[in-house]
Amino acid sequence: MTDVTISDRLKNVPSSPIRNLVPLAQRAKKSGVKVYHLNIGDPDIQTPCVMLDVLKNWKKNPIAYGQSQGEPVFLEALVSYYHKIGFPFITYPHIQVTSGGSEAISMAMFAVAQPGEEIVTFEPLYANYNSYAAINSVQLIPVTTAIQTGFHLSRVSEIERHITNKTRAILYCNPNNPTGTVYTKEEIDMLVALAKKYHLFLLADEVYREFIYDGLTHVSLLSYMENIPDKAIVLDSMSKRYSLCGARLGALVSLNAEVMAGALRIAQGRLSAGLIDQHVASKLTEVPDSYVKEVQTEYSARRDVLYEGLKRIPGIVIPKPEGAFYAIVGLPVDDAEKFCKWLLTDFRDNNETVMLAPASGFYATFRPGQNEVRIAYVLNTAALKRCIDILAKALRQYPGKTG
Amino acid sequence: MTDVTISDRLKNVPSSPIRNLVPLAQRAKKSGVKVYHLNIGDPDIQTPCVMLDVLKNWKKNPIAYGQSQGEPVFLEALVSYYHKIGFPFITYPHIQVTSGGSEAISMAMFAVAQPGEEIVTFEPLYANYNSYAAINSVQLIPVTTAIQTGFHLSRVSEIERHITNKTRAILYCNPNNPTGTVYTKEEIDMLVALAKKYHLFLLADEVYREFIYDGLTHVSLLSYMENIPDKAIVLDSMSKRYSLCGARLGALVSLNAEVMAGALRIAQGRLSAGLIDQHVASKLTEVPDSYVKEVQTEYSARRDVLYEGLKRIPGIVIPKPEGAFYAIVGLPVDDAEKFCKWLLTDFRDNNETVMLAPASGFYATFRPGQNEVRIAYVLNTAALKRCIDILAKALRQYPGKTG
Repeated sequence: MTDVTISDRLKNVPSSPIRNLVPLAQRAKKSGVKVYHLNIGDPDIQTPCVMLDVLKNWKKNPIAYGQSQGEPVFLEALVSYYHKIGFPFITYPHIQVTSGGSEAISMAMFAVAQPGEEIVTFEPLYANYNSYAAINSVQLIPVTTAIQTGFHLSRVSEIERHITNKTRAILYCNPNNPTGTVYTKEEIDMLVALAKKYHLFLLADEVYREFIYDGLTHVSLLSYMENIPDKAIVLDSMSKRYSLCGARLGALVSLNAEVMAGALRIAQGRLSAGLIDQHVASKLTEVPDSYVKEVQTEYSARRDVLYEGLKRIPGIVIPKPEGAFYAIVGLPVDDAEKFCKWLLTDFRDNNETVMLAPASGFYATFRPGQNEVRIAYVLNTAALKRCIDILAKALRQYPGKTG
Repeated sequence: MTDVTISDRLKNVPSSPIRNLVPLAQRAKKSGVKVYHLNIGDPDIQTPCVMLDVLKNWKKNPIAYGQSQGEPVFLEALVSYYHKIGFPFITYPHIQVTSGGSEAISMAMFAVAQPGEEIVTFEPLYANYNSYAAINSVQLIPVTTAIQTGFHLSRVSEIERHITNKTRAILYCNPNNPTGTVYTKEEIDMLVALAKKYHLFLLADEVYREFIYDGLTHVSLLSYMENIPDKAIVLDSMSKRYSLCGARLGALVSLNAEVMAGALRIAQGRLSAGLIDQHVASKLTEVPDSYVKEVQTEYSARRDVLYEGLKRIPGIVIPKPEGAFYAIVGLPVDDAEKFCKWLLTDFRDNNETVMLAPASGFYATFRPGQNEVRIAYVLNTAALKRCIDILAKALRQYPGKTG
């Protein structure tokens, strides 16, 4: 018997819904089953050569601490990037380099709210928002969006209903993980108006900024930043844009000097982001435009295969994903989590199966027996076709099928 | 005028005392002055070749997320390391890889204490403990140790005086940054007894484990771990041991399964530590023993130069540093912070000066006008000799000299 107890707050940190079923997947693999991973957004796209060349030509020795705000060479590259995408007012003092987008989001929550204060957001949401909220003792107040409306934002009155005197910010993800929704200009206008009306920070997680299809335009919070300089905080990441998930690099961007000074103080405490990673990523200015274009074309094709394939399966509800590389899909099953487990433990088609993420973990409100899953279409089109085939067969055989 | 305000807790995160004077140093450098940096523990020792070769031979593409607990290859290397230094009971489930020792310390504070609860520690302390405490809303309760006793631990009654019903843990750093003190077996025995008596976690920051001189033995908390399996948490880092400060890799080590499960949940939220860094550091098993020996010899020589040189300067008080690569030094000045600034703004010897860290930032209690500085002896012996010379001259000229 132990006579020391861990803190309640540690008990309250949720485990990752996309990693919870990993032991079942591992067991299946050990028994020789091929498992297609649609559960995690780890892209298979190659990292740009010009970045990997940095490793081959590495000269710095020792591997010393970088600057706490970010390595000058990487900060410069980020400044060029923001200028290039149309925001010439972003300069050095407006950028704090972070260890992944994760640190940027967590830092922002810490910066805008005291323990117990509230941040309004939209669910289904990026599951790790729940972790960062738990770690920062912040209350996420989710406005639920619906599959029927493609998870676009609720009416303004519905959002206002969630704003209290404890609300300090609105946090949204655009393009959205996990729904694939890309918000319209009208939707962002509405959020900006709410931030003004209620004196709230507006936190925009835009790590999928370039992942947008069908000729849609991404309406970045950056384009409102000079209008609401104190309120806007943009959270960014190199992970998806350049297939650098393992490089753990992101950024917190704001014109609010107090926020930036505070972010730097937090950053000083953890000394610096990775030196090697920053030098690798600083080559982003040399990544040809064709790289991003090809990535868009590839994901657009994958999205088409997934969408066209799934919507033909009886009982499946899938809004057409507009961006990022995720879809929340409604399945004709009693309980999506049970179904996802069953896929890994019981179902085999030609000794193959698929791994999906039950969507319950992407809600901040408790949803028992929910029938939605998140699918990350990070496999090539041939593999995706095979996955759709497996899923169709599985749904025909699943004992808990509904409808 | 802004109508949104940052959180009070962001305002309370302290800035880094070793980086606060950086603008003054930059100004001096711009005017052509050479500044010797004794303010920051960024070692000049080369990173082992076998580690850097990983970069040259890098093949993995894309740079994907690693495992949240740590990359298997790096976890394996860490297991071998702990076995090699005499702790064969440490295996996979006892290690959480972290983004630097910083994340390990912050995670541990979060794990053991609720907001407002207390962690007893010893000052002078590693300044960033104040940051992690602020970020985690934990109260650090410092027991002050004295320069006269070489900053060794106070008597048990003095420590007990600081333990309340809100105390959840005792945190200590051994070998100590910033004092260079290496605790004796009797001192660690006392801390272990206190943890048992008061049902407290014992958090040992041992990132300087190998930096120990004069044939002293390092008494690791690892050697007590099987005795107090639920209470002991060891915080580790690759930064100093292999000159990998910029690789941002550390570890939280414990036999307490609840702590480890919680640490993993936090780790899942931030996805993974750096992939490239982990593969680089995983070569630690191939670093020859001679590497660590040479590093010890080098720092021991530097310590000797610093100690012998400084103790000859009238009015300076310096306990002989036993480990790490720091010393807290008492100066015959009115206010060490003013003196450190004056060195950067006013004093020049042959157009050179030194940068020191005022020790006030290494206390958790407020100490106005304190006369101590921290010196990191991370320069070669020739440079150190020159620094001592500069310091001696500066003290002769300084208008705020005392005694």
